[in-house]
Amino acid sequence: MSERAGSFNLGALAFDAYGTLFDVHSVLAACEAAFPSRGEAVSRLWRDKQLEYSWLLSLMDRYENFWTVTEKALRYACQRLGLSCDPATHTRMLESYYRLAAYPEVPAALARLAVKRRLVILSNGTPQMLAAVTRAAGLTAVFDELISVEAVGIYKPSPRVYALLPQRLGMPAERIGFVSSNAFDITGAKAFGLRTFWVNRQDATPDGLGYPPDIVVRTLAELADRLAAART
Amino acid sequence: MSERAGSFNLGALAFDAYGTLFDVHSVLAACEAAFPSRGEAVSRLWRDKQLEYSWLLSLMDRYENFWTVTEKALRYACQRLGLSCDPATHTRMLESYYRLAAYPEVPAALARLAVKRRLVILSNGTPQMLAAVTRAAGLTAVFDELISVEAVGIYKPSPRVYALLPQRLGMPAERIGFVSSNAFDITGAKAFGLRTFWVNRQDATPDGLGYPPDIVVRTLAELADRLAAART
Repeated sequence: MSERAGSFNLGALAFDAYGTLFDVHSVLAACEAAFPSRGEAVSRLWRDKQLEYSWLLSLMDRYENFWTVTEKALRYACQRLGLSCDPATHTRMLESYYRLAAYPEVPAALARLAVKRRLVILSNGTPQMLAAVTRAAGLTAVFDELISVEAVGIYKPSPRVYALLPQRLGMPAERIGFVSSNAFDITGAKAFGLRTFWVNRQDATPDGLGYPPDIVVRTLAELADRLAAART
Repeated sequence: MSERAGSFNLGALAFDAYGTLFDVHSVLAACEAAFPSRGEAVSRLWRDKQLEYSWLLSLMDRYENFWTVTEKALRYACQRLGLSCDPATHTRMLESYYRLAAYPEVPAALARLAVKRRLVILSNGTPQMLAAVTRAAGLTAVFDELISVEAVGIYKPSPRVYALLPQRLGMPAERIGFVSSNAFDITGAKAFGLRTFWVNRQDATPDGLGYPPDIVVRTLAELADRLAAART
């Protein structure tokens, strides 16, 4: 793998946000506080439906922004689990998305990865969501730009989303490394033509669609090690 | 609801295939035979991944036909569950898709629904898959046409799929009733402009994207009753 990595000539790294930089377990805590002992079920269904809705609306050519999608997915999860959610609880749960913690290794790893490279975020989140969560985690300064799919009105893994990167960064796709913990996101980015680095934090099964990542790591710290080794 | 139904002036009905006309529990039986006591887990994950892959490939502009998608989804399900699947078992499980049973009420209900209306199938399945399963269930004669998404190279719920119906049937969308047990399929058809009839066989939670069905029933027999009542 290090021979592969050695051939990279990366001018920039683009990061997925939710689950990659920011720990969605903070959402789990909000779910558990609202619905004791059901937090995990709510949070898993909420996340699954959030992605499913993003795919369906994209395919239907009926884009709605990620805040609305997240809100509708939460309503679905509560309804399906037979949980009644008052407006204040609903709002509190949603707003947990503004205050996600970064994974512990993220700040130091980003500082290492930023040496001689531009860093950006490319996320389904709205510009407002991305600004808030990045600020709350103290990571605003490290990123050149927070790029939201809102610019193209369709969700990952549409190639129109990944095409924002060469456009905004002004460099060819093969000089851009894309970092995500979401297997489908890696698949989409690879199919588009980016270099892909899968942060497989949870030992997930690889996606089987035939666009495997260039590098698989467990944490961003490991990615910083691998890319540093590839340079020497 | 019967007032609503009374306003329909349907020239044709289009049916989803898998889960709507054909009982995918036959697939469950094949899974259980291959992996005793794990059949339900395999079959649920297989189906979920089959749909997910169909959405992702569509969004990526990388259509592969439904037989390939179904095959890749089965491989994923086995890998994730840690089950090793020899080639003969793999083939046997896949081929169960050719021989699904129709739900018990389907033949008689279709005969009633066909009076003064054209009936077609609109499905993600390949033309070969649709011809085989319809023949095996003895339903070939009742349908004017088996319409596969293969004609447009994208999956449901893309509007390009539903647009095949007014094109092929030569009538406006509002004169076509679309029947499916899959909530996302109803949502897509409604967003496109068809009349939608949700066969909610399993008491599923309604989709929350804001395109509710015109009628909800539990079986096709109930749909035949409702549409007959609306005529009188």
